[in-house]
Amino acid sequence: MGSGICRAGAYAVLGRVIMQKIRETIDQIEPLDERAMRLAKERQDILTKPKESLGVLEDLSIQVAGITRNSMPKIRDKVIITMAGDHGVVEEGVSAYPQEVTPQMVYNFIRGGAGINVLGRHVGARVVVVDMGVAADVEHQNLLNKKVDYGTKNMTKGPAMSSGQAVRSIEAGIEVFEEELRKGLDVVGTGDMGIGNTTPSSAIVAAITGEKVERVTGRGTGIDDAALKAKVRAIKKALKVNQPDPNDPLDVLAKVGGFEIGGLAGVVLGAAAHRTPVVIDGFISTAGALLATELAPLAKQYIIASHNSVEIGHRVMLERMGLRPLLDLNMRLGEGTGAALGISIVEASTKILKEMATFADAGVSEAIEE
Amino acid sequence: MGSGICRAGAYAVLGRVIMQKIRETIDQIEPLDERAMRLAKERQDILTKPKESLGVLEDLSIQVAGITRNSMPKIRDKVIITMAGDHGVVEEGVSAYPQEVTPQMVYNFIRGGAGINVLGRHVGARVVVVDMGVAADVEHQNLLNKKVDYGTKNMTKGPAMSSGQAVRSIEAGIEVFEEELRKGLDVVGTGDMGIGNTTPSSAIVAAITGEKVERVTGRGTGIDDAALKAKVRAIKKALKVNQPDPNDPLDVLAKVGGFEIGGLAGVVLGAAAHRTPVVIDGFISTAGALLATELAPLAKQYIIASHNSVEIGHRVMLERMGLRPLLDLNMRLGEGTGAALGISIVEASTKILKEMATFADAGVSEAIEE
Repeated sequence: MGSGICRAGAYAVLGRVIMQKIRETIDQIEPLDERAMRLAKERQDILTKPKESLGVLEDLSIQVAGITRNSMPKIRDKVIITMAGDHGVVEEGVSAYPQEVTPQMVYNFIRGGAGINVLGRHVGARVVVVDMGVAADVEHQNLLNKKVDYGTKNMTKGPAMSSGQAVRSIEAGIEVFEEELRKGLDVVGTGDMGIGNTTPSSAIVAAITGEKVERVTGRGTGIDDAALKAKVRAIKKALKVNQPDPNDPLDVLAKVGGFEIGGLAGVVLGAAAHRTPVVIDGFISTAGALLATELAPLAKQYIIASHNSVEIGHRVMLERMGLRPLLDLNMRLGEGTGAALGISIVEASTKILKEMATFADAGVSEAIEE
Repeated sequence: MGSGICRAGAYAVLGRVIMQKIRETIDQIEPLDERAMRLAKERQDILTKPKESLGVLEDLSIQVAGITRNSMPKIRDKVIITMAGDHGVVEEGVSAYPQEVTPQMVYNFIRGGAGINVLGRHVGARVVVVDMGVAADVEHQNLLNKKVDYGTKNMTKGPAMSSGQAVRSIEAGIEVFEEELRKGLDVVGTGDMGIGNTTPSSAIVAAITGEKVERVTGRGTGIDDAALKAKVRAIKKALKVNQPDPNDPLDVLAKVGGFEIGGLAGVVLGAAAHRTPVVIDGFISTAGALLATELAPLAKQYIIASHNSVEIGHRVMLERMGLRPLLDLNMRLGEGTGAALGISIVEASTKILKEMATFADAGVSEAIEE
């Protein structure tokens, strides 16, 4: 499985599944637009402030200009895509919560009572909830159904999913992004829900980077020492049993991943293909982004890391992608909560570029040339 | 001068100026309300998320509960008070910009074209601009006139201001806060404008903490090496000529401070006295907050540090006050721009506390007790 994948180009045939949609999406991803970035930088330098005194806000505005090919980008429609899935590996005692919490939280999202709903409203973003693979039937008119299966299989006993399901989960993520783009979308944030999903995420980091499992495995929702030991043991066993190919992100996803993680990789690919900034959340979202950037390294340029998660292993991924998170607020909830706060900062950056007066407009004297 | 000041109590007679307003304000400051904080913490623990998984957002909501004596505080009216003043020390070549930029930027604030206007609008805060001591006549119906004088004197040649002016600047800050409170104010941010005002701010840090001048003096708006040398020299000379008493914050303010810095100290004292969270901006705002907390150590509990400024010396002050900044975005503009972003995070924290569903409300299972 997965032997036909070329990491960067990703032209591949997986069994009988031709991953045409993924291939086409990756092929659309281009480098950022240098001209738009240069124009944005030039404008930042004539706005009424000392040069570069708004630091990361200036950098972000320039990045968004390059992403959107627009030297004065406007962010109006903000969307957070929160993807849910279940994980067979919970049988191994890796989480503090029972699996039934996944569908319960999906309903909480739909009713607007979860953390991501509060922060989505706060920053003016619509929250799109997607069933990527919850292990129960969850139905509601405000829930997108992209269910690949009723939870993954227990990865300590074999692959978490088939190679076809891995492809399907990424494709579904691209589809969701494109559907939301049609409704109006200027920036997208990613989020996740899935009891046990820090376990496959840690497995993905370990598989791809080769880091020791202990160094990339944390306490998730808050497990004790005994459960942490069980979690490390389960990840090690899954890696041993499945032998994922570190050079083949689809193989890694299939063997030790999750449906929502694949979906989030698809959102990142879709955003990059459609020249849209994508603000990633914490540990699980970043695992999805890591898979996407291993498939398509250019996608890195379209990603903004919202925050530094408490979960160890997060920093390892950010460093591999060359991303510096905007926030460090000791958060570890997931759902897209960090992404929501990050989106507000990205929006602020574009308003600075667009709305601030220039020295000439405002009749303000410039710095004295020495 | 200043020999009668008791640091914590601050009952004092300065020459013939009886600082009754300041004294009364300081006397009103009480410790945070433990009961409201306990109730807020108890509610955070039953909301639909793993305990403490929203990290600093949870801490902030509990702090605001304690500040406001309300276990479910609501932030509706957000205000940023941006205070402007000029500095005689600019004669020493300490800034990259000419002094005329101070009134020019005040007009820019009034017209809504500055960074603080953009970010104030972004977070839904009204920006209140105050002339504390601009060295020119600036008049507009939307500008508060609390001018203490037309700029401070050159502190390398004697005190920057009289002891009476120091008291007056703090009193004016308290007055502005109280006037805005009457109009509606649930959280206040501080901001500054004043060409050359990192110089008195560095002098204040050095005077109060005893740190070496070189270790607390940075490039402000972006001066070159020669100007940085001139700046360090000017601060050292000002400290030598004036010998400010490190145990007497009013003496420090008078000898090496600024009118807007005194005003910002007053805003902090007013906020603490009226049980209102105060979100401080960068280097200059923090120098004002440092003076306030040296006068009234309890005021520290009411302060939220918005961001870590590029300006060296900022961290020295934050550490002395025991404050950890929310953001680190490489910013150094001032005006209240960091405070604006910080206010949005504080507001988010109170919404989490108020709007999230509990486990019971949402029918979500709680963590399995081990």
